[in-house]
Amino acid sequence: MALSKKPVTGMKDILPKEMRIRDYVMTVIKETYGSFGFTSIETPCMENISNLSNKQGGENEKLIFKVLKRGEKLNIETAKEENDLVDFGMRYDLTVPLVRFYSNNANSLPSPFKALQMGNVWRADRPQRGRYRQFMQCDIDILGEPSNLAEIELILATTTTLGKIGFKNFQIRINERRILKAMAAYSGFAEESYDSVFIILDKMDKIGKDGVYAELISAGFSKESADKYLNLFRSMETSKNGLEYIRDELKDYLEEEVAISLTEIIDSVRATKASDFEIVFDPTLVRGMSYYTGTIFEIAIPEFGGSCGGGGRYDKMVGKFTGNDVPACGFSIGFERIVLLLLESGFEIPNESKKTAYLIEKGVSGDKLCSIIALAQKARSEGEQILVARMNKNKKHQKEQLMAEGYNEFKDFYKEELK
Amino acid sequence: MALSKKPVTGMKDILPKEMRIRDYVMTVIKETYGSFGFTSIETPCMENISNLSNKQGGENEKLIFKVLKRGEKLNIETAKEENDLVDFGMRYDLTVPLVRFYSNNANSLPSPFKALQMGNVWRADRPQRGRYRQFMQCDIDILGEPSNLAEIELILATTTTLGKIGFKNFQIRINERRILKAMAAYSGFAEESYDSVFIILDKMDKIGKDGVYAELISAGFSKESADKYLNLFRSMETSKNGLEYIRDELKDYLEEEVAISLTEIIDSVRATKASDFEIVFDPTLVRGMSYYTGTIFEIAIPEFGGSCGGGGRYDKMVGKFTGNDVPACGFSIGFERIVLLLLESGFEIPNESKKTAYLIEKGVSGDKLCSIIALAQKARSEGEQILVARMNKNKKHQKEQLMAEGYNEFKDFYKEELK
Repeated sequence: MALSKKPVTGMKDILPKEMRIRDYVMTVIKETYGSFGFTSIETPCMENISNLSNKQGGENEKLIFKVLKRGEKLNIETAKEENDLVDFGMRYDLTVPLVRFYSNNANSLPSPFKALQMGNVWRADRPQRGRYRQFMQCDIDILGEPSNLAEIELILATTTTLGKIGFKNFQIRINERRILKAMAAYSGFAEESYDSVFIILDKMDKIGKDGVYAELISAGFSKESADKYLNLFRSMETSKNGLEYIRDELKDYLEEEVAISLTEIIDSVRATKASDFEIVFDPTLVRGMSYYTGTIFEIAIPEFGGSCGGGGRYDKMVGKFTGNDVPACGFSIGFERIVLLLLESGFEIPNESKKTAYLIEKGVSGDKLCSIIALAQKARSEGEQILVARMNKNKKHQKEQLMAEGYNEFKDFYKEELK
Repeated sequence: MALSKKPVTGMKDILPKEMRIRDYVMTVIKETYGSFGFTSIETPCMENISNLSNKQGGENEKLIFKVLKRGEKLNIETAKEENDLVDFGMRYDLTVPLVRFYSNNANSLPSPFKALQMGNVWRADRPQRGRYRQFMQCDIDILGEPSNLAEIELILATTTTLGKIGFKNFQIRINERRILKAMAAYSGFAEESYDSVFIILDKMDKIGKDGVYAELISAGFSKESADKYLNLFRSMETSKNGLEYIRDELKDYLEEEVAISLTEIIDSVRATKASDFEIVFDPTLVRGMSYYTGTIFEIAIPEFGGSCGGGGRYDKMVGKFTGNDVPACGFSIGFERIVLLLLESGFEIPNESKKTAYLIEKGVSGDKLCSIIALAQKARSEGEQILVARMNKNKKHQKEQLMAEGYNEFKDFYKEELK
């Protein structure tokens, strides 16, 4: 079979220039999340296929790269469907593996457990510009913390990290699944149609209130419910405090403490934030994953069209593995989008060490070579970055290439020490 | 389908304790290799299956996790063999992907190109203690450098890194594929049987010279060749300088410059090394991969039975992708073995920052909660690591767990400030 120079369809090679930015962002993330007490963990990139097909992953479950069974377990002749041929699948996110990890290891972990995961995930999406089938996710999660301290810490940690990377003027939008549901109940939608209503509501920022209204009607919902629903959003906008309005207006549908807790999250974050952003209650925020049970939030960065990360509370997922629910809340940063933004903005990594290239003419050998290497070793031991390489025939081009790699100083070593 | 708490067979969850050591080792590796001018790159974890089945990977090609085709490309009914069902495979090492990467991107890379790769690889080996089917590899490679400067830099970079991690008294064993071949030719073995001879020679450290002799005879080689071969090893041992002896004795079979270059590598490394190790010429070193064309080397750490990493020169591999050979040489560190050694030796990470846990009684909320978080935010901005968590009912157990995680200071916050 012929060898192919290209990466597999939809995945990409990462060159040094991008890799330096990725490494830098990863270092800032690890340090900052570390200062909040999040500890790194890792799970295998493959999971048992049954764990990935449990309906928690929504649309992502249709995009799984599946791994062929091996040895005697594989029987091609009798196989009727995909699941006869595969036993593992590539993870499509880090949340399902985290919950499995926690279920498997809870006895060895502190409570609450604050986890940081950075790792690749795979989705067999239709390839498109800027979107790849292998990409890095970066999640923090707190398991075992029922109070809103989890949300406050997650939002502070994530926003501090974004600030350290250099982002300003961004926004955290926050909402609550229970508020979403109460608003739908108040408007008279039937419980089994909530998800359809929310899918339409989710388009509010694109199609506006009139658009949402029109779609609700054309989806067969009653004019009465649609009117009541949209009027609720209008009244909140014009009221001094949307959350307070909700608390009073929905008091027959919503436990008071839901709105109080959300207010406390917003106030605490505003009072203690360490970077330049705003946190706002957004009753139109939906977030797709069906596993969310409470608070949900999203990052909006002005330089970027859509969301640049998000998360929420999912208190019912550990129970699916263990039979006992454990409170859980997580926040995922849009790592690839952040890297793309930095790359496109010509971002310069701060405080990079001095980079010197020693270029040695061909033929320099023995003691002479040794003394040059010894010089490099000494500089390295003092923290400098020294590249030792043979001089190319086209030295000018070689230096240009090295300057593009960030080398700002050169030392040439010749066989005859004339120059 | 039922959910499984366990990781897939043969792969493991990595808990915070091990992860801290892994992160530390990765940081030292990146910094040290960085000081030698190696730049990080990354390739997708999957490769086209044809690239992985090109006979370069030896036995590893039998251990590939293969990825099921998707959508219309998959036709289970007409599939006769595995290759009808799969298009991608999980990489089993980082060398094949690196060479593909270089072939694909050479125009955008400096020459010589010094690459650092750290990433997972997968092999469907029979699961056994301490050996996993997903494991991290850590490779440095220099492409485009024909002279032995590549070998010298690779060995210095790797040994400096091992020294910084804390290893002492280790050994680099070095040999040359062309010396191996010349010794076999000199002894009268036929060229097509070299590989069989080397497989037997490779056991020398386990079965000794007599064992190798016996296996050669029972494999059907002539007594004359076996005698001549083993006598060569004996004479080298008793001579003052094994490499010099080889150069003289094999002069009809070996270009003089091979031995001269190997001597220069050994002398240069000895003269400029930055850590506590010895480099020795070892004519019994074979290394399995068929792609090696010149120098080969291996790390032996006394605390560890076998090899803890190795590498060599593979000048003919880029040509398989591009039609044009490019000189190439690489060194792979046994990352998992190093981590295992550190874990088992009770290794303590140097200079870890102070870790303080703030434990907040349930019910503390509003302004009081805010002021505690503000305190934590201030300490974090000053470089401290602060965990903020709710106090558990069993505070003693909670503190014990946190002490095991490295927390050495605690601050308790109560609703009523009595305590």
